[in-house]
Amino acid sequence: MLIGEFLKRSGQRLVTCLPDHFLNAVAKQLYSHNIGAMPVCELDARMVGIISERDLVRAFARADLDELRYLRARDVMTTRVISCGGDDTMQTAQKIMTINHFRHLPIVENGRVQGILSLRDTLAVRLQESESEVSVLRDVAALTRQF
Amino acid sequence: MLIGEFLKRSGQRLVTCLPDHFLNAVAKQLYSHNIGAMPVCELDARMVGIISERDLVRAFARADLDELRYLRARDVMTTRVISCGGDDTMQTAQKIMTINHFRHLPIVENGRVQGILSLRDTLAVRLQESESEVSVLRDVAALTRQF
Repeated sequence: MLIGEFLKRSGQRLVTCLPDHFLNAVAKQLYSHNIGAMPVCELDARMVGIISERDLVRAFARADLDELRYLRARDVMTTRVISCGGDDTMQTAQKIMTINHFRHLPIVENGRVQGILSLRDTLAVRLQESESEVSVLRDVAALTRQF
Repeated sequence: MLIGEFLKRSGQRLVTCLPDHFLNAVAKQLYSHNIGAMPVCELDARMVGIISERDLVRAFARADLDELRYLRARDVMTTRVISCGGDDTMQTAQKIMTINHFRHLPIVENGRVQGILSLRDTLAVRLQESESEVSVLRDVAALTRQF
């Protein structure tokens, strides 16, 4: 399946935050939307990073709690952002995430972020496709045996 | 694949924490072991809950930072723990997680926790199995056409 099609079907609503957001605002946003990561975008919608649950846990693990109060999204986000496009396949996206040890990948079209894809999304879609193919091939094999 | 076999193959090292651990110690443990969740066990190894990155993010989102300092694993862990056994299949584990909206499932044998399984683990293993089956069935179909 192409990523653009997945994005349409999933009806995903894009959630982003500003680089200046404090970490507890980021935590509130991730938690209330039940998501593991989101793009960090400037006011002009330009993506400057991604922030995930793991980034928050890392900040929480490393920082003194007094320091945590003053940390913002820009201080803990991942800035080495690799993205994929709507015309890429789920398999391509999965490979990019596996090679780079990412769990999330932003989907970018014409320079604007459109959504986010998780490694779990790619696995789930590919499993569904593969199981459909198994089912068809088994039917074909059963028919062949009849003739 | 059976869960016991997966556990053996993956060489997973069991990481747990005590219910009395403060949240930043929990964060340190999750982050340093690069894991999303771990069982919370009493000193006698009895599992009393599971604590995940999402539990930490929820605590971070809800609590005042001064309060966060005093929170312990027992205060934010998930206590409604459903587990699976080594003789269950990856498919069963995946169903349990999907129905209950869990992302992690502890593996328990003879009353003792042996490891933890993520939804991503189950999807990855099942995708691999399904793709092997597709490959075999395609070979069979190709051979059938030759005769």
